[in-house]
Amino acid sequence: MLTRSGRFVLSRCSSTVGTGHTTTAPTEDQIQMLLQLCVDRHYISPGQRNTQHFLRGFGCSYGPLGMELKRNLLDQWWHSVTRSRWQVFGINTLNCGEEGAAHGLRMVDSGLLQKVLEQPELSREQLVHEACRLLQKSPSVRKSLLQGALEQFVPSMELVKRKLPFGLAETGLCFQPSDGSGCSAEVTQTSLVWFCSPRTSSQWLDHWTRHRLKWWRKFALNPSGFSSSEVPQEELEESALRGVKIFYNFPWGPESLETLWSRGDTELLDAHRGAHSKLQCRDGRKSVPHVVSVSGNVDRGVKAFLSNSLQQLKRDDGKQKLQQRKALKLHPVLAPVKVALDIGRGATVELRQVCEGLLQEFLEAKISTWPGYLETLPTSVEQLIAKYDEMGVLFTVVISENTLESGLLQVRSRDTTIKETMHVSEIKNFLSRYISAADNL
Amino acid sequence: MLTRSGRFVLSRCSSTVGTGHTTTAPTEDQIQMLLQLCVDRHYISPGQRNTQHFLRGFGCSYGPLGMELKRNLLDQWWHSVTRSRWQVFGINTLNCGEEGAAHGLRMVDSGLLQKVLEQPELSREQLVHEACRLLQKSPSVRKSLLQGALEQFVPSMELVKRKLPFGLAETGLCFQPSDGSGCSAEVTQTSLVWFCSPRTSSQWLDHWTRHRLKWWRKFALNPSGFSSSEVPQEELEESALRGVKIFYNFPWGPESLETLWSRGDTELLDAHRGAHSKLQCRDGRKSVPHVVSVSGNVDRGVKAFLSNSLQQLKRDDGKQKLQQRKALKLHPVLAPVKVALDIGRGATVELRQVCEGLLQEFLEAKISTWPGYLETLPTSVEQLIAKYDEMGVLFTVVISENTLESGLLQVRSRDTTIKETMHVSEIKNFLSRYISAADNL
Repeated sequence: MLTRSGRFVLSRCSSTVGTGHTTTAPTEDQIQMLLQLCVDRHYISPGQRNTQHFLRGFGCSYGPLGMELKRNLLDQWWHSVTRSRWQVFGINTLNCGEEGAAHGLRMVDSGLLQKVLEQPELSREQLVHEACRLLQKSPSVRKSLLQGALEQFVPSMELVKRKLPFGLAETGLCFQPSDGSGCSAEVTQTSLVWFCSPRTSSQWLDHWTRHRLKWWRKFALNPSGFSSSEVPQEELEESALRGVKIFYNFPWGPESLETLWSRGDTELLDAHRGAHSKLQCRDGRKSVPHVVSVSGNVDRGVKAFLSNSLQQLKRDDGKQKLQQRKALKLHPVLAPVKVALDIGRGATVELRQVCEGLLQEFLEAKISTWPGYLETLPTSVEQLIAKYDEMGVLFTVVISENTLESGLLQVRSRDTTIKETMHVSEIKNFLSRYISAADNL
Repeated sequence: MLTRSGRFVLSRCSSTVGTGHTTTAPTEDQIQMLLQLCVDRHYISPGQRNTQHFLRGFGCSYGPLGMELKRNLLDQWWHSVTRSRWQVFGINTLNCGEEGAAHGLRMVDSGLLQKVLEQPELSREQLVHEACRLLQKSPSVRKSLLQGALEQFVPSMELVKRKLPFGLAETGLCFQPSDGSGCSAEVTQTSLVWFCSPRTSSQWLDHWTRHRLKWWRKFALNPSGFSSSEVPQEELEESALRGVKIFYNFPWGPESLETLWSRGDTELLDAHRGAHSKLQCRDGRKSVPHVVSVSGNVDRGVKAFLSNSLQQLKRDDGKQKLQQRKALKLHPVLAPVKVALDIGRGATVELRQVCEGLLQEFLEAKISTWPGYLETLPTSVEQLIAKYDEMGVLFTVVISENTLESGLLQVRSRDTTIKETMHVSEIKNFLSRYISAADNL
């Protein structure tokens, strides 16, 4: 049996956020709306400073929903890259290195430095000397995951018996020095460093560009918001042969999510002090491989999918009354909460027991569940659904007196807005099937 | 049909590593053996410095197998903590804070500091002043995940409508200042910060101790190596009411893996500048909650499971010849590689095709697979199996001419050492069932 709730229609005018179309609503309002929703619905933690971090595409303090979204995104990246070819191996390298750029970020023991600076018996010269020595001894902090992968090249060659191509994948925290604003940034990066023969590096760059763009679009509500473009010759990084960037077109302009470089062999040779013979691989002739690097910013990726999936809806309930509502239509595999469990009218104690049984069942099946029935403030089902739409919850399950009598419950879908009646014994399998079908698309 | 390979028996004497029994073999040898195996089998990257990091229970550079083991361990921790009770929410906070201990680690832009130190026109006094100012402006780096969770207490209260108890879970990188050795350490930590009413905090400490100890033992080959013990009154951290540590008894002595503190409300009040009213929760009476913290070191956990699962076996092949072999009997859910695919004698091209088909099938079923058939050096099946046992691979599948004729292949189990014949169409489901059964134990 199917029943229909009041239908929501996508507004035709200016209110769709995230498609990149020109809009009449000022960009500032759209940013505010996105931020407000993210804070209210526990995607990011409140606070001016934190929302600024988020907006700039840096790591920020995430609430439970944002944390789960980021986690899902990282998992998807990992599986898509490491399972796409058997020659991709995961690694986990250190953040702090002994060596590093002379002028980069360093992890300094401030107590020790303070002590040096406060020694009255040191002359000016001695003081400078001691402080510099301490600074140089302090470990340098990584800006990207590239260096770690280049260093792991030699031990990893054994895994493939020196046969090209192969790749090293890693995700992890990286630090960017502060820009003028005094705001130094931490970013969770993804990195695939792909080692291939020099003559194929350009083809591999194209291969991975297609792979990555397809991946971003797979999870998008509006795939056209994601695009790739070749880095112009004059903007190439030193030693890079070619470069491609993947952009998301935010309402306030495009920002780069992932960057692919065909880097030649310079940095690989540098990382191994020019030891040509140690680096040679089998590949028809003996050659030092070229490096194609693919590195992404997960925090900005989270922002892109939040922006892309936010829909403003105008409710057309037939009574000439227009209501504005918002829904976060995140892809089913990314959505942090798959199902919310709530109770309608009826004997609260018994209804709660049914909910608790279902909650246990869902958790065991690894279905992320929101136990809405535990909220003690009485709310109408319509208000609940509006909240869950903003949270991006895929399904709302309502247990009512009817469930106690007939075993039937109501399931409402975020995407179709349709309410369906289902037997309590079927719901877990229905949800599991829905999620795994979305995963295998 | 079952056939039996030469049987391995657990040596009765001194050679079992990881049970914590007194042994005749010197500890140094056991450490060397563990290190050698971890490096040879791509658990950790080679290098004196890196193995030292590993031995001390710090983060180190992991190879593909170590990376996967660490990832599996983190996943298991996450699911066990966040799914054990619905009131546990995941968060993701920043590594760098604005404020911090005056004498902790800080992320200093060494270029800027160098510039200050090199300004000839500055007097000694000005130079000290400028350097201190720069130091204080530099973000401080976290030593643990506690502070982040305490700061998230207020926005998280809304999730539970101010109802106790609830908890915030997080995993992430933390940094320890260098000890005398000049070796500053990064460690991946797990953290559960549990907020509860003051009168129940001691019970909750006991609850979580049982929960955590059970978890460590669940994955152990020798569960008795893991133990918990109350921190003596005189060793309690400032402001802590009680403490419990979970230890693993390495062959070289016990090391602490996870620490639980009943911390009272002092630090929570400090994190919110004593704003009592903001922190009060519903719990019969209005009260500021007490904090129970549960924080673990994942890198040391990886080392504990590697040590715990390493078995030295003496082969009794009936010919009075004793051979020593090693096997890494990691728990099925932790083992980084579930199955290795190899070919026996026969037409190589056709056999490889079968392997490629199976590899694809396994990857789609999310079964981590080692494509041994791609190794070009000819090795005997016995040598292969010895290698896979050291890698901790659960099953070795061998495709031979017989497979092409009858569809039958051989599956050898790491744990039973039994070789079984199975039809090619059954193998994927067999593996999937085995792994998920182990997961649900």
